[in-house]
Amino acid sequence: MLKGGFKMKRTLINELKENTESNIRGFITKVRDTKYMVFIVVKDTSGHIQVSIEKKDKEELANNALEITTGSVVSFTGTMVKSEYVKDGGKEFLPESLEVLSKAEVSPLEDNSNIDTRMDYRWLDLRDEKNHLIFEIQSYLVESMREFMYQNNFTELHFPKMIAAASESGSEVFEIKYFDRKAYLAQSPQFYKQMAMASGYERVFEVAPAFRAENSNSYRHATEFTSFDFEMSYIDSFKDLMLFEQNLLTYALKKVHEKYGDIIKEVFDTEVIVPTKDFPVIDLEDLYKELNERYGYTIPTEDVGDLNAETEKLAYKYAMEVHNSEFLFITGFSPAKRAFYHMRKNGIPEGYDLIWRGTEITTGAQREHRYDILKEQAKEKGLGKDIEFYLEFFKYGCPPHGGMAIGLDRLTMLLLNLPHLRETQFIYRNPSRLNP
Amino acid sequence: MLKGGFKMKRTLINELKENTESNIRGFITKVRDTKYMVFIVVKDTSGHIQVSIEKKDKEELANNALEITTGSVVSFTGTMVKSEYVKDGGKEFLPESLEVLSKAEVSPLEDNSNIDTRMDYRWLDLRDEKNHLIFEIQSYLVESMREFMYQNNFTELHFPKMIAAASESGSEVFEIKYFDRKAYLAQSPQFYKQMAMASGYERVFEVAPAFRAENSNSYRHATEFTSFDFEMSYIDSFKDLMLFEQNLLTYALKKVHEKYGDIIKEVFDTEVIVPTKDFPVIDLEDLYKELNERYGYTIPTEDVGDLNAETEKLAYKYAMEVHNSEFLFITGFSPAKRAFYHMRKNGIPEGYDLIWRGTEITTGAQREHRYDILKEQAKEKGLGKDIEFYLEFFKYGCPPHGGMAIGLDRLTMLLLNLPHLRETQFIYRNPSRLNP
Repeated sequence: MLKGGFKMKRTLINELKENTESNIRGFITKVRDTKYMVFIVVKDTSGHIQVSIEKKDKEELANNALEITTGSVVSFTGTMVKSEYVKDGGKEFLPESLEVLSKAEVSPLEDNSNIDTRMDYRWLDLRDEKNHLIFEIQSYLVESMREFMYQNNFTELHFPKMIAAASESGSEVFEIKYFDRKAYLAQSPQFYKQMAMASGYERVFEVAPAFRAENSNSYRHATEFTSFDFEMSYIDSFKDLMLFEQNLLTYALKKVHEKYGDIIKEVFDTEVIVPTKDFPVIDLEDLYKELNERYGYTIPTEDVGDLNAETEKLAYKYAMEVHNSEFLFITGFSPAKRAFYHMRKNGIPEGYDLIWRGTEITTGAQREHRYDILKEQAKEKGLGKDIEFYLEFFKYGCPPHGGMAIGLDRLTMLLLNLPHLRETQFIYRNPSRLNP
Repeated sequence: MLKGGFKMKRTLINELKENTESNIRGFITKVRDTKYMVFIVVKDTSGHIQVSIEKKDKEELANNALEITTGSVVSFTGTMVKSEYVKDGGKEFLPESLEVLSKAEVSPLEDNSNIDTRMDYRWLDLRDEKNHLIFEIQSYLVESMREFMYQNNFTELHFPKMIAAASESGSEVFEIKYFDRKAYLAQSPQFYKQMAMASGYERVFEVAPAFRAENSNSYRHATEFTSFDFEMSYIDSFKDLMLFEQNLLTYALKKVHEKYGDIIKEVFDTEVIVPTKDFPVIDLEDLYKELNERYGYTIPTEDVGDLNAETEKLAYKYAMEVHNSEFLFITGFSPAKRAFYHMRKNGIPEGYDLIWRGTEITTGAQREHRYDILKEQAKEKGLGKDIEFYLEFFKYGCPPHGGMAIGLDRLTMLLLNLPHLRETQFIYRNPSRLNP
């Protein structure tokens, strides 16, 4: 009963068979008029091919072809043949008929369009081969990461993004008009991941949007981004998390390297380096000392107990020089610089940051699961009513647990050596950009 | 360097080896005091086991064990042995030591707690085996659906949820305070999926939250839900979409049936039926006629050209009786009842609804990709400024395309024969519920 469409089946350009009547469909990227011939380049998701029309033989077709504008979408029926005259691939397509599926106006984008124009016409910007590829790679990166999670018995849950209270910090949240009251957009699924632990799910993850109302314009922040979050119970220490994250990233990088390593090298001029040993670990105090001795860098007083952008950059330099590692785990942060729900041991948070290629990609930690201590730590940070509902999760039994989050857009930015998050978000959002 | 934790490795209960010293960790579900023995049931993600402590032999351990409250989380080190006296599984665990990892207060939930109390304490509600299982199955359902998408060369994209204009209909959207202006929560990724088509991505999908500010309380609606969306280019007709969706659902149901069929039968008293033939298709006019002739049902005037809840129920009855199919595709809706972006042929939208077990799970359609016609159809529905940015997507060339969305929570509800969406959302959201 369901026979699908009714036309001649379309063939992808890279699957065309020589001397076989076929139908190709795609965007027009070039139209060239010569004395005897019209040449058109058609591009689809698999590649591109030159369509050649002899004016004398196919007058009407040639005339119609000459009216096609760049960017238009067409369907050609004809035959692919090998040709020694075609430089690019040695193949050309000789059409019998042409159908214009969508006629394009002249593109407002030019080769030297500035970034704002590119973003305004993002859908045209994404036709660029390099830009297009970013999201193919990102999709495969996430597919690989999920695969690892499934292999390790994680359950993928979907947590609410509209929440009743202003969440972790009370600041930097977007307010929603929720019928006759207020709601807020979740900055992270943190509280709900932990709730899942109290429910008896031992390993959960989510890949979902997260929202931050930070009024800043930095290359590595956005007001909306995709967060890869996980949480696991019955860890013995945050070191279990570090080990797990190392294995997760190594697995994903290996997969990406296998499938896209060559093309990433070619298009992005960057190597995908698959780690072959444990990521090095350094205590924050020791890192400060190393950076001072090696590079003469002293951390400003206000940043002591934490990282800043400069420290992250130098930490990468240090990791490469001393450990020949692109990754570096840093432990021993100040409790003043960490969330109230990080478990502490002798006053030090049981957590870590992971630096890759000079940028922090993860904060991970064992969580405080003991109600009384957690309540005390929240109070110490001045958190009250907003987190009461969250504290309840720990009253009726909760396993020891911990977890982490990886910003997916940021991970992609570092993987492909791109300068700004706006390149790795399909649609970028910052305080001044809400379009398209 | 990364050795992970430091304690004795934990063993999952269903992986315990007889007569081997092991460490188990989990929730306490029962403590029973008898004259000579203390019996405790421990549950983890893999199963449960009876822990037996002889009072005379292990006085201190027994006393400590008696102080454990139900819901607490413990760690026992000891040995699993086979025992003919243990009814449930013929195994028991003889502990040498006990550590209480988290002490529980008395649970506010009782066997007969009403639905509001259950929802207020959702994390305790989810400890129930049946409730717990729902999300394991849902995770596997999505994993299977994604697998099918990857096999068919789809790219998973992440679309923005904060948008500048009030989207498709102008009503039923949540308003966000976005710094000094307003933004809105996306009702669906519709516009951006289509933008991806104009960008040259030929097959894309997304699994992400969608938001609807509908002030209604129905068993099959929520203000936030998880939407499985896809869009594909170069279809010849909406029938290509129907065929694809049929194959997608058949694939996913087959996987779920293989892994969870027996337990779904046991716990939810429902069969997972894997379709073995094409889903039947009926035109809306013909359906009205069939329902009238067979069941004496006449569609109310205001619903003519569309489905309503009663029609969906009877359509299922019809599909089972006539086609022995749980699924039924319905075509031929009225343009007045469909979105402006549905392509029309002779005035009829080129789209369909899919009914499963008496409930609509999908609206799918070929989209109008021709700028002038699309603009006209928008105008006809009274849509203006809000969708101007969207119309731009079609000015510079766009392939013919179509797509659909499946509500994941609703799909799970129907799969497991549950009465209400709140059972299949990890955290349920409706106009009056924003907690936890």
